[in-house]
Amino acid sequence: MATPRKFIFDTDPGVDDAMAFFFALASPELELAGVTTVFGNGGTRITTRNALRLVETAGRSDVPVVAGAEKPLLHPYRGRAGHVHGADGLGEAGLPAPRGAAQPGRAARFLADQVMAAPGAITIIAVGPLTNLALAVSLEPDMVHAVREVVVMGGAAARPGNASPVAEANILNDAAAARIVFQAGWPLTMVGLDVTCATVMSPAYLQALGAIGNPATDFIARIAPFYLNFHRTQGVEGIYVHDSSAIAYAVDASLFTAQAAPVHVCVGDDRTNGQTIPDWRGQWPDAPAANVCLEVDDERFKALYMERLRRF
Amino acid sequence: MATPRKFIFDTDPGVDDAMAFFFALASPELELAGVTTVFGNGGTRITTRNALRLVETAGRSDVPVVAGAEKPLLHPYRGRAGHVHGADGLGEAGLPAPRGAAQPGRAARFLADQVMAAPGAITIIAVGPLTNLALAVSLEPDMVHAVREVVVMGGAAARPGNASPVAEANILNDAAAARIVFQAGWPLTMVGLDVTCATVMSPAYLQALGAIGNPATDFIARIAPFYLNFHRTQGVEGIYVHDSSAIAYAVDASLFTAQAAPVHVCVGDDRTNGQTIPDWRGQWPDAPAANVCLEVDDERFKALYMERLRRF
Repeated sequence: MATPRKFIFDTDPGVDDAMAFFFALASPELELAGVTTVFGNGGTRITTRNALRLVETAGRSDVPVVAGAEKPLLHPYRGRAGHVHGADGLGEAGLPAPRGAAQPGRAARFLADQVMAAPGAITIIAVGPLTNLALAVSLEPDMVHAVREVVVMGGAAARPGNASPVAEANILNDAAAARIVFQAGWPLTMVGLDVTCATVMSPAYLQALGAIGNPATDFIARIAPFYLNFHRTQGVEGIYVHDSSAIAYAVDASLFTAQAAPVHVCVGDDRTNGQTIPDWRGQWPDAPAANVCLEVDDERFKALYMERLRRF
Repeated sequence: MATPRKFIFDTDPGVDDAMAFFFALASPELELAGVTTVFGNGGTRITTRNALRLVETAGRSDVPVVAGAEKPLLHPYRGRAGHVHGADGLGEAGLPAPRGAAQPGRAARFLADQVMAAPGAITIIAVGPLTNLALAVSLEPDMVHAVREVVVMGGAAARPGNASPVAEANILNDAAAARIVFQAGWPLTMVGLDVTCATVMSPAYLQALGAIGNPATDFIARIAPFYLNFHRTQGVEGIYVHDSSAIAYAVDASLFTAQAAPVHVCVGDDRTNGQTIPDWRGQWPDAPAANVCLEVDDERFKALYMERLRRF
């Protein structure tokens, strides 16, 4: 087996963030080097508490958790997604408070410092608004050559948005940051709604997952019902996996069909804010290409997820 | 005399930046704690070289010079203002290369670290595009409480722009950064075209300045002619002082008449990009107010400038 790929998980937990986190830790292809937090599904105080809960549940308090941006660069914070993830961001399951605390410092500095200290080694997997990444790469432009890859859960290439008719939630939560990240010129893969909504974990799947009975699946079993209920209100019988798709890409890219194109992120005060437009025909020249995931083998992905969580 | 006010000079030298720099160093009310550079009048490599030339000419190589952002946050760099300041940013006067080098590190970190290390003590005087300040305050939001004041040369309240019909050059060079800086909520004074174009140094004034014959005025005498010629092409007989107005405000605010209002910075891909709109009647609520300079006693200002440069 090849050396595991080091990664930093930039996250706003979030139910699906938690599910992605355990999936990553259970995958020998990946080695977690740090967790950075950002506002999004909850405010940064909440998401940082939740990140601490995740590392502690996994028995990985050795992993640094560093708090990041508390609001978008330009626009006001749209507010937490309490109806999706619960007021506490983790399904209102009455989880105990974390014991530890975040490492001092700021996420953007941590990202820049870690990537620059190990050129070519670190992958950033970002599953929340892209504020920390935008700040890091603006602060330290040489990151674009030093990072191994940036994998973003966000955007929509060929289907409507979820947070607006055109925009996916992570991108809409900081469209300016997203534009900075998509035009930075680093190796970037977009894992957007085109694939994350193509994989649905049914109630039966979640029940089988819960029956495994280890600390990770027990945790998921507590937090998933709220998220499942939200999906029901949207007419979906099961849950979109969203953030786990970004982990799946890093674990086994062959699960996905992707195509290269520059992705323009609309930034403005109008209704196109946060829209991600792939320029398939190169009509807007001079923008760096992203690797845009378009299809996923969802059955193989769900089998992989289950297999990995069994190992946890 | 009161304790001098510590300040960091964020700059893209630039002829008028150089004139402002010497004015500040010759003013006992101010104490220079560092110079941070940014793209603008030239690329950051050029402006950093020029900042080093300035500290060396002033015999102040003890002052750290830290290089900053090389491009705007969102939009492409509009390119150096070679027709205004010369290809080298300092009037194509054949100046010798600087001997020293910039301190390692990035301007935004330097700004954040210096301000946080001395709460209430440091004023930032920013006379270039606001990219470094925007990054610093996004990275370290507590700066808004720790900084003493932010004085910005930029914008236009009640008169047209210079770099576009609505936008002043520093703001247009990074409108997104400017919006971040104007909405950050720190004590901010805008020294815009309303006052900087109300003070013109005539050829006779510049001749009298050059006749002083110290290292600062000799330097100015070499770099000013190119800048003066540019103004002639614009139908102005003399030079706008621009950046020195920001120093004048920090030295003696009584030279200016100012009024408080939130200033909205337009950010977009359209022609209003970089426009600064003061909301005098509070019609766009919830934005922090800036102190907007509207008038200046230009005769007293020019007398002060001459007096200070004589002391250099």
